[in-house]
Amino acid sequence: MKISVIGCGRWGSFIAWYLDRREHEVTLYGRASSSHLKRFREERTNGLITLPETVQLESDLGKALESEVIIISVNSQGLRALMQEIEPFKVRNRTFVLCMKGMEISTGKRLTEVVEEYMEDTSAVAVWLGPGHVQEFYRGIPNCMVIDSRDEKVKERLIESFSSDLIRFYYGNDLIGNEIGGATKNIIGIAAGMLDGLGLSSLKGALMSRGTREISRLIEAMGGNVLSAYGLCHLGDYEATVFSQFSHNRKFGESFVRGTEYTSLAEGYYTVEAIMKISEEHHVDLPICRAVYDVLFHGKDPKETLNSLFVRSLKEEF
Amino acid sequence: MKISVIGCGRWGSFIAWYLDRREHEVTLYGRASSSHLKRFREERTNGLITLPETVQLESDLGKALESEVIIISVNSQGLRALMQEIEPFKVRNRTFVLCMKGMEISTGKRLTEVVEEYMEDTSAVAVWLGPGHVQEFYRGIPNCMVIDSRDEKVKERLIESFSSDLIRFYYGNDLIGNEIGGATKNIIGIAAGMLDGLGLSSLKGALMSRGTREISRLIEAMGGNVLSAYGLCHLGDYEATVFSQFSHNRKFGESFVRGTEYTSLAEGYYTVEAIMKISEEHHVDLPICRAVYDVLFHGKDPKETLNSLFVRSLKEEF
Repeated sequence: MKISVIGCGRWGSFIAWYLDRREHEVTLYGRASSSHLKRFREERTNGLITLPETVQLESDLGKALESEVIIISVNSQGLRALMQEIEPFKVRNRTFVLCMKGMEISTGKRLTEVVEEYMEDTSAVAVWLGPGHVQEFYRGIPNCMVIDSRDEKVKERLIESFSSDLIRFYYGNDLIGNEIGGATKNIIGIAAGMLDGLGLSSLKGALMSRGTREISRLIEAMGGNVLSAYGLCHLGDYEATVFSQFSHNRKFGESFVRGTEYTSLAEGYYTVEAIMKISEEHHVDLPICRAVYDVLFHGKDPKETLNSLFVRSLKEEF
Repeated sequence: MKISVIGCGRWGSFIAWYLDRREHEVTLYGRASSSHLKRFREERTNGLITLPETVQLESDLGKALESEVIIISVNSQGLRALMQEIEPFKVRNRTFVLCMKGMEISTGKRLTEVVEEYMEDTSAVAVWLGPGHVQEFYRGIPNCMVIDSRDEKVKERLIESFSSDLIRFYYGNDLIGNEIGGATKNIIGIAAGMLDGLGLSSLKGALMSRGTREISRLIEAMGGNVLSAYGLCHLGDYEATVFSQFSHNRKFGESFVRGTEYTSLAEGYYTVEAIMKISEEHHVDLPICRAVYDVLFHGKDPKETLNSLFVRSLKEEF
């Protein structure tokens, strides 16, 4: 299968490596100005992943779009601009696969909705979500992930072509649930980091139980399956988010409450703003997301805000 | 409220300390031969918890049974023998509260079912479950737990009398689900330890997602609520079980696959045997529990057995 990966950050370059190993014909696209692409061109590595010569490096978008499968792994807030660049090429019969987690803040839209606005009717869109650390996959440690699409045939074809002993794919059956679950796990990751920073790590058990529950209620209100939050897209990613030393979102939350420096804002920072809008539209109360939002955007005291979350007791669990 | 705690192990002695702090009149019961009780009598401490003089120490079962609330925290397989000792006292109007996680192997019964066989009709039984480490509670770090009972009034009274800034209680609404969820989290804890021991810790994300799912199916088949496995009793306890260095069940699983010594069998070792029986009765397939059972009881190869669990892919998640 001819596949292009758009975005040569950590996940994008891993996907290119993985699909090449899976014996597909892979092109990795980055902008001509990308420092990542430059380094791959010079050294074939980004310090973490070394790409074999069989992976083509490309900075011409038109050439990258010649592949039948286009995997996108870029910053969520940059997805619309990328699709606006892609649209004039009028490519047909393509499968876009989003390997990224987030929501568009300005519209509150899911990422597949953004893609659908710009793609031709003959094309399809899918998502690739779930747990796994790039470092561990690269060392050969397997994990399970999920692929979902409203197009059953596309989903089946992707899963058959992408599965291997390293990544075992499950069939997703709820695009809304999987997208919202994937996006919101970064918010729970920030909350987990805040608890760590406040010396309240043992509340991460209650965070998992109450966090999945509120996301589950949101997904249900949006027309998805109440169980999806408990799937690989969300709960299945907690190991890598809520408990991992490497999680960007968890580390960001920890640094934020400790008042120490952080190099860049985490994806969950953007997602929580979009989710606040959506929760209002759908009249769903999301106490944990709101607490994270209030601390990050309204300067509320983290200890008091997070602690009071779990004082909301003397009530029913479900 | 006059409360007796039966069992002066780690949890029992913590509960006595906690309810005394909550200003109840507390008696801690242990057998005359108990080394724990002996140490408390001599030093008022077990090295972890120091009991104030207001907590009475008692080795006369009849006197301990004079309290209106009897909290039991003993080994699950010893519960029936304890109830057989209690029965001849013919105590009436008591509330038995089980603060323990497990199943009876010989009968496959839930622990409240065992208590009900021996208690007078005028008495009630409740369970107290959920996350939290004794060490952290004692240091003042709060957590959420759940109390459940088929008797609504008993449940309300216990929650009102036991709640504090340290433990926030939720109202359970599914005794079957909470008991099965509480018991089976120890099996998932053993599986987590096995993954750790095999260098497959990153599969703990998938373990959480697939583990909760199979327990959820079992609870549903037994007549409970499909969501209970995602509550504090099970998923909420994963932080303390799947990820904690202190979890006895996790450490046991890790030692078992590494072939290193372990001092005692973990509670989940007994529970998995009981759960295998129950799953057959209810015709529910529990691949993770079965894998743990096969490794522990049938000498199956851990790496092959656990790895193959997650190769069961190319199928639907829910």
